[in-house]
Amino acid sequence: MHYSSLEPQLPITHVDLARRRELKLIALQGIPEVEHGSDLPRLLSAAVEQNGLRLEPDDVVVIAQKIVSKSEGRLVQLTTVEPSPRAIELAQVVDKDPRLVELMLRESVDVLRARRGVIILEHRLGFVMANAGIDQSNVPGSDNDDVALLLPSDPDDSARRIRQGLRNACGVDVAVIINDSFGRAWRNGVTGVAIGVAGVPAVVDLRGETDREGRVLRVTQIAAADELAAAASLVMGQADEGCPAVLARGFPYARRDSSARELVRPRDEDLFR
Amino acid sequence: MHYSSLEPQLPITHVDLARRRELKLIALQGIPEVEHGSDLPRLLSAAVEQNGLRLEPDDVVVIAQKIVSKSEGRLVQLTTVEPSPRAIELAQVVDKDPRLVELMLRESVDVLRARRGVIILEHRLGFVMANAGIDQSNVPGSDNDDVALLLPSDPDDSARRIRQGLRNACGVDVAVIINDSFGRAWRNGVTGVAIGVAGVPAVVDLRGETDREGRVLRVTQIAAADELAAAASLVMGQADEGCPAVLARGFPYARRDSSARELVRPRDEDLFR
Repeated sequence: MHYSSLEPQLPITHVDLARRRELKLIALQGIPEVEHGSDLPRLLSAAVEQNGLRLEPDDVVVIAQKIVSKSEGRLVQLTTVEPSPRAIELAQVVDKDPRLVELMLRESVDVLRARRGVIILEHRLGFVMANAGIDQSNVPGSDNDDVALLLPSDPDDSARRIRQGLRNACGVDVAVIINDSFGRAWRNGVTGVAIGVAGVPAVVDLRGETDREGRVLRVTQIAAADELAAAASLVMGQADEGCPAVLARGFPYARRDSSARELVRPRDEDLFR
Repeated sequence: MHYSSLEPQLPITHVDLARRRELKLIALQGIPEVEHGSDLPRLLSAAVEQNGLRLEPDDVVVIAQKIVSKSEGRLVQLTTVEPSPRAIELAQVVDKDPRLVELMLRESVDVLRARRGVIILEHRLGFVMANAGIDQSNVPGSDNDDVALLLPSDPDDSARRIRQGLRNACGVDVAVIINDSFGRAWRNGVTGVAIGVAGVPAVVDLRGETDREGRVLRVTQIAAADELAAAASLVMGQADEGCPAVLARGFPYARRDSSARELVRPRDEDLFR
């Protein structure tokens, strides 16, 4: 023990308020409905300004997958989708529209579980997720049941392009995360996770660092981009007043080039398939 | 579509800056080493003051499991642990200290997976996690290999008691989350999750709410306490300069009584065992 329990407890040590560790997440409100071809960097930089902010070099802009997909034209009219026999069969198991299931299969490389109402796949991007990330909510159209929104085809690349666009628009080299809401094994509810990153480490590796007692840390890898994606997701909300982009200020780890692939556990290290 | 792509894009809508949606996470620095019997509410309220802050009724204080466990005397001397034959056998499979494995088994109700270096159990609290949450880092003692730190015996109750203690110390009824870092299936790296909550919803249920298009939301449950726990974890850090408590200001959902049990998926709905 550092001190006997008979001694009075040590007081709070001096805190240098100028070096306060603080993470701030600010909703970028006022972004209009995004459609195919929308210039996201322009919309984002206008929203930054309208929200009384100015981008700083250490900022991370977290953007909802939904608006990235929409801007990239990843909306599919289901009337154009011809379900395969396999999709029709699987659709009966899971009780979903066979055309939606067909899209899920096209977007995936493996089906992990299929039960009534639930289909868990390995997306071609490597993510294990429900429905291959295909979404029917918040999709504008006269009949929402007839459209589906796919993930961006390469979310890391989307993040890089938005980062570059923001640099062009604002002259500041911020980092970018594209987030989505995933369910988890064993735990209820969805949380925000990173599906694309640019300029921010997806995983922070603390191997070799020591704790306060000089002991080598056992928890060696922190999914920092997922933690920030979750924080941003909280601010984005999901319902009527949802906001599809968040400015994060105070991300505590060093910037570097990275990929959301770092967050994907290799299949041969995965115990839950 | 809301507007034709031939029309100019709608401008950013007016943003009322007075109603800016912002979540702030501030590290409560300066907390001394915690030991059995330490008065956490007193240490936390002193840290709030030392960090130039004052608690507000809508604040959430997020506290690392480690200091809660230490204050509750959940440190076990391994020399006092007699491993059972089952623990000795399992210890060989996973290549861990049989006394540690014995503690893991005592803390758990089921072993899901056991491979060299990895043991995934269902904790008696319901959480599926590695090592039953037993930690050997940041544990003070002459030889860290001889001590282990268990989870609090009832983290919801710990959260409630700390909340009550903070109310007594500061006269403000904040909410409390106790967080820990869990690994996940399919994804690399750990993220902060909530293992105990008081006054804050563990899960926010949006069933019945509609999206911007009037469509009923498909993502109906948000693991809000996990998202906040992850955000706080980012600010806490893990290594030398780690900080075991964070003040969160701006949690966007209505306060209510809750339990971290809400975050546990019932076994019969769980597809990954």
